[in-house]
Amino acid sequence: MLVACLFLLGSVPANAQTDPLLSWNEGKTKQSIVDFVKRVSAKDGKDFVPPAERIAVFDNDGTLWAEQPLYFQLVFALDRVKALAPQHPEWKEKEPFASLLKGDLKGALAGGEPAIFQIVMATHAGMTTEEFEKTVRDWIATAKHPKTGRLYTEMVYQPMLDLLAYLRGNGFKTFIVSGGGVDFMRVFAERVYGIPPEQVIGSSGKLKFELRDGKPVLVKLPEIDFINDKSGKPEGINKFIGRRPIAAFGNSDGDLQMLQWTAAGSGARLMMLVHHDDDKREYSYGPTSKIGTFSDALMADAKKNGWTVISMKDDWKRIFAFEK
Amino acid sequence: MLVACLFLLGSVPANAQTDPLLSWNEGKTKQSIVDFVKRVSAKDGKDFVPPAERIAVFDNDGTLWAEQPLYFQLVFALDRVKALAPQHPEWKEKEPFASLLKGDLKGALAGGEPAIFQIVMATHAGMTTEEFEKTVRDWIATAKHPKTGRLYTEMVYQPMLDLLAYLRGNGFKTFIVSGGGVDFMRVFAERVYGIPPEQVIGSSGKLKFELRDGKPVLVKLPEIDFINDKSGKPEGINKFIGRRPIAAFGNSDGDLQMLQWTAAGSGARLMMLVHHDDDKREYSYGPTSKIGTFSDALMADAKKNGWTVISMKDDWKRIFAFEK
Repeated sequence: MLVACLFLLGSVPANAQTDPLLSWNEGKTKQSIVDFVKRVSAKDGKDFVPPAERIAVFDNDGTLWAEQPLYFQLVFALDRVKALAPQHPEWKEKEPFASLLKGDLKGALAGGEPAIFQIVMATHAGMTTEEFEKTVRDWIATAKHPKTGRLYTEMVYQPMLDLLAYLRGNGFKTFIVSGGGVDFMRVFAERVYGIPPEQVIGSSGKLKFELRDGKPVLVKLPEIDFINDKSGKPEGINKFIGRRPIAAFGNSDGDLQMLQWTAAGSGARLMMLVHHDDDKREYSYGPTSKIGTFSDALMADAKKNGWTVISMKDDWKRIFAFEK
Repeated sequence: MLVACLFLLGSVPANAQTDPLLSWNEGKTKQSIVDFVKRVSAKDGKDFVPPAERIAVFDNDGTLWAEQPLYFQLVFALDRVKALAPQHPEWKEKEPFASLLKGDLKGALAGGEPAIFQIVMATHAGMTTEEFEKTVRDWIATAKHPKTGRLYTEMVYQPMLDLLAYLRGNGFKTFIVSGGGVDFMRVFAERVYGIPPEQVIGSSGKLKFELRDGKPVLVKLPEIDFINDKSGKPEGINKFIGRRPIAAFGNSDGDLQMLQWTAAGSGARLMMLVHHDDDKREYSYGPTSKIGTFSDALMADAKKNGWTVISMKDDWKRIFAFEK
C-alpha cells in the first residue's frame, strides 16, 4: 500500500504533463472535447455531472473503426457463406448465394436489404451463442482489410481510442451503440476498445434456451429481435442503459436520433459527428455513399444544433495506430 | 493526494476487522459465500477470475426485497388503476377494471394472466418514459407495505444488501435479472441497492421514438417486448450482459434456468436460492404459493446440483434494516 501510494505520488507530475488526446490536432474540435470534460467534472461548477451519470455513447462502424469498402461484419458474413457452402449444395441455385459463390458480389447484393438479410441469417443463426463467438474470434484473428492489408481490428481510429481512454479517465462510462450485430462486436470490443460486453449495444436476433444432454445452450434463431439503428438507437439506449447519455459520437444518418436524444437532456452535452473527408489516409465519402451516408440534411442539422463535425483530415493528427 | 494516501493507510486495519456480512448468522451458508469470493479473488489460485468477469446476477422480487402479499409492482399498477379511473369511465363496465374499482381484488385477478396483462398495459403504457418514471418515483416515495406499514423500499433484505456490497467490494459487478418491469425497477435500484440502471435487466414493453414539438420522446407502447422470466433469464443475460455470470441468486422456479446457465460455465461458481421459511419475521411460503413458487422439483434440483438454499430463518440474523 505504501509503495503504491509513493508510486502514485511520484507519477502525478508526469501524468499532468501528458496530453491525453495526443492523436488530435490542436484546434476548436479538440478544445471542445477538453472544455466539455472539464465542465462536467468540475465539482463546484454549475455543469457538474456525478460520475454515475457520465454516460458516453459511440456508434461503431465509421466512428470507432473504418467501414469501407464494406461493413466488416458483412465481409465476415460473405466469408462464412463460402466456408459453409459445402454444407449447402442448394446455394448453387439460390440467390443471393449463387452469385456470391461465383464471386459476383455486386450481383449478390443487387437484391438489396432482403438479400443481405438472407446472408446474415444464414451465417449468424442456427448455432449456439458459444459456437458463433468462436467462429467470429477465429475469423477476426486473421481476416485482413483489402486496402491496407492490416487486420480489421487494426482499422480502429487512434484519436477515438485516445478519446475513449480520456473519457474513462474522467469517470465516464463508455458504450457502443451500433447498428451492427451485438454478438459480433462483443467478441473484440473489450480487447480493442476496452469496452466490456455489457456496454456494447447493437442489433440482435432472437434466442432460444435449450437443454442439450442436460447442458443449457442458447441457440441463435433466424429471426430479428431488435434493429439498433436510427430511431432504434434511442430505444436501445433506453432498453440497455436506462439513462440519457451526456455525450454521443456518430458519423452517419443512422446516428441522427441518438444525437437528438442525447442533446435533448438538460445540462452540458457534447454531440459530435466524424466526417470522412480524408481520401489520402482513409476514405472520403458523404451524402451519396451507400455505407455510412452523411447526408446534406445531417450536415445542416449539425450546424443548426451546434453539433461538432470532426474533420478526419484536419482534426486527426494520426488516423490509425499503425501509421508512423 | 498525500492526505488521501495517509487516510487509506490508516484505515486498513479497521476495515480488515469489520465483518462485511454482519446480517448473516455464522454457518455453512455464510461460509460458502466467503469461500467462493476468496477463491475467485486469489490472484495465484487456480480459481482466480479477472474482475471484469466477476458478474453476479440477482433476481429481485423475493430475493432482494419482499414479494408478499402481492408483487409490489402489481400493487403499483392497482393503485394506478384507481388514480386513472376518472379518465376511463368505460372501466366501470369492463373487467378486470370493474371488479378492481369495486374493491374486489380477487375478482379482478380471477381472469389470470390476461387480466394482469390488461392492468399492466393500462398503467405502464401510453405515456413517455419520462412521465412513467415520474409516476413511479412519486408512488414509491410514499406507498407503504400493508403488514409492516413501512415504505416498500424499506422491505429490502439487509443480508442481501450486505452481500451486494461485499461482492462489489471484491471487484464484482452486480446485476438485477428480474421478471419485473425494467422501467419500474430502475427508478429505485440505484438508491436502494446501489445498482445503476444499466445493470438492471427486466421485462419490457416496446417503445416508439417520436418528435413532439421538435423534442424527442420515447413513448411506451402497450405491447410486450421481452419477458425476462424462466428461460427468458439466460436470454436476457446474453442480450444485456453478453457474458456468463459466475454467481446467481434467486428464490423461485422462475430462476431455475438462470441458475442452470450460471452453473454450466467452467471454473468456480456460486448458485443460491433464498427460501422463505420465516413466518415470524417475514413470510413462509413455497411449493403451493402463487407468488414466488419454490417447487419441490426446484428443491430437488438444488440438492442434486449442490446449490445452496438460504434459510431466512436460520441464516439471516436480521431480515430488514428497520428491525432492531
